[in-house]
Amino acid sequence: MVLVSSPDSYQSRVDGETTIIPRQDPVVYSKAGGPGLSQHQLKSYQKNGFILLKGFFSEAEAAVFLEEANRLCDDPAIQGREEAIREPGSDLVRSVFRPHRLSPLYERLAADRRLVDIAQQILGSQVYIHQSRVNLKSGFFGKDFYWHSDFETWHVEDGMPRMRAVSCTVLLTENNEFNGPLLLMPGSHMHFISCVGETPQDHYKQSLRKQEYGIADPAALRFLADKRGLQAMKGPAGSVVFFDCNAMHGSNSNISPYPRSNLFMVYNSVENRLDPPRGGLKPRPEFIAAREDCEPIVPLENRFVPDAP
Amino acid sequence: MVLVSSPDSYQSRVDGETTIIPRQDPVVYSKAGGPGLSQHQLKSYQKNGFILLKGFFSEAEAAVFLEEANRLCDDPAIQGREEAIREPGSDLVRSVFRPHRLSPLYERLAADRRLVDIAQQILGSQVYIHQSRVNLKSGFFGKDFYWHSDFETWHVEDGMPRMRAVSCTVLLTENNEFNGPLLLMPGSHMHFISCVGETPQDHYKQSLRKQEYGIADPAALRFLADKRGLQAMKGPAGSVVFFDCNAMHGSNSNISPYPRSNLFMVYNSVENRLDPPRGGLKPRPEFIAAREDCEPIVPLENRFVPDAP
Repeated sequence: MVLVSSPDSYQSRVDGETTIIPRQDPVVYSKAGGPGLSQHQLKSYQKNGFILLKGFFSEAEAAVFLEEANRLCDDPAIQGREEAIREPGSDLVRSVFRPHRLSPLYERLAADRRLVDIAQQILGSQVYIHQSRVNLKSGFFGKDFYWHSDFETWHVEDGMPRMRAVSCTVLLTENNEFNGPLLLMPGSHMHFISCVGETPQDHYKQSLRKQEYGIADPAALRFLADKRGLQAMKGPAGSVVFFDCNAMHGSNSNISPYPRSNLFMVYNSVENRLDPPRGGLKPRPEFIAAREDCEPIVPLENRFVPDAP
Repeated sequence: MVLVSSPDSYQSRVDGETTIIPRQDPVVYSKAGGPGLSQHQLKSYQKNGFILLKGFFSEAEAAVFLEEANRLCDDPAIQGREEAIREPGSDLVRSVFRPHRLSPLYERLAADRRLVDIAQQILGSQVYIHQSRVNLKSGFFGKDFYWHSDFETWHVEDGMPRMRAVSCTVLLTENNEFNGPLLLMPGSHMHFISCVGETPQDHYKQSLRKQEYGIADPAALRFLADKRGLQAMKGPAGSVVFFDCNAMHGSNSNISPYPRSNLFMVYNSVENRLDPPRGGLKPRPEFIAAREDCEPIVPLENRFVPDAP
């Protein structure tokens, strides 16, 4: 393991050795105030690389979002599509990609002003959806998801130039200590962990079910975890987490009887559109990494549930 | 799923249907007071089926116990024995059985008066060790352990007659929300979940690595969990959990960088020695289920670390 102070980009999967490269991009891009997070919240995001906003949406709104997730996963027309990903060793649909294009409700949610204001504030520009996904971690047999930085994959496999994207997770069920909540390493977004080994073509077909390349070295993970520990993103349905594209995250399994379902949307800056992938890789499909569908989002004033009488 | 009020024993793995049989045995067998748990603690154990005693042993004592666990797992002479069990898909030793016969330190610990007093109090008799085990759930890749009642297995595969055994877990590392702590279902010890399917001969050879028979039905687990939820046995190293042989328990995976290591010892009443296994099964080996080595424990006044000056 080598600590490198490199003047250029974020190389990964080219060397035989793990390196830890200091972040070379801002975390928060906007200068001024404006709508979105408070200055205090923005500072916390800057420092930790994420922020948990408990009860961001009401329980009634969350119930509408969850119903839509179940409807999508149970729809045979969706199940037959390449966007539907199954649990390893099971026929259960675990994820549906691109829900914001498969569901009018999620299309409206992705453009919700309450979310888009925050994404624009963090990224300092207009934004579009780079990737979106509904994740249903089933009760009893929900699998763990090993530590990874999304940016490492997006940089290598999708040619995302800079760390200028923010992930937004909407909790569709309660996430608690028992059902495999999202785990984050505070401060990890300031370090890029380059990974060992070359990526095979069409790696995504396996990696969506089980990651085998772009795996961070245990010593590097230990280095990150020892700095400031781990944090679990626990909260009621309707809570929202924003986390930096380079924040190290993962989740444990879920043997509890209760599913853990989340909606995941990645806002990317319109100034950070994808280049060709590194190392001569073929671009991954549009439903995993948007290249065509990059029009800036026009924020919407939504109402997902009728007003209380 | 059928709820049965049966006048006789705890049948399992004979029917094609899951049944929930009410417990027909006491939980706490002793009448009088005496050394061990307080009356308040005993009531809590009676109601929940377990009790967590944080900081039961000092951190200095726990460090001695942990060092011994690592020594055992790293000892090539131990690694070559049938008592050493590896992680599925890995060469890491995950468990060592019968540590109280492989290590003089653990032999003394199993007979420690502080523990034996409690076991005798709960079981209302002298006790012996039915099974013991050191479990090292490694960091990063520690696997989950699905829900099960130990008594279901011990009753069917070992011929344990009644629910008159208590498991004692000594936490050798901190157990926290990140590293796959023991999860228990409060009140589950009052219900015996009979399982579907017959047990093959020599099932233990696989089941120690991955359980495939004696699996409780998800609807039955949901029934138990919905009653009073789940509880995680979190605490500093040196904490101790006593739990009833029929308490439903399991644990999630551990992707955290920190190992979760525990010592597990089952005290059985000398009045509850093993019958032949059910259904014509061969007895499992002595290191999994003691049939010969059943002399009542003579409690010891131990001192594991030197007195402070």
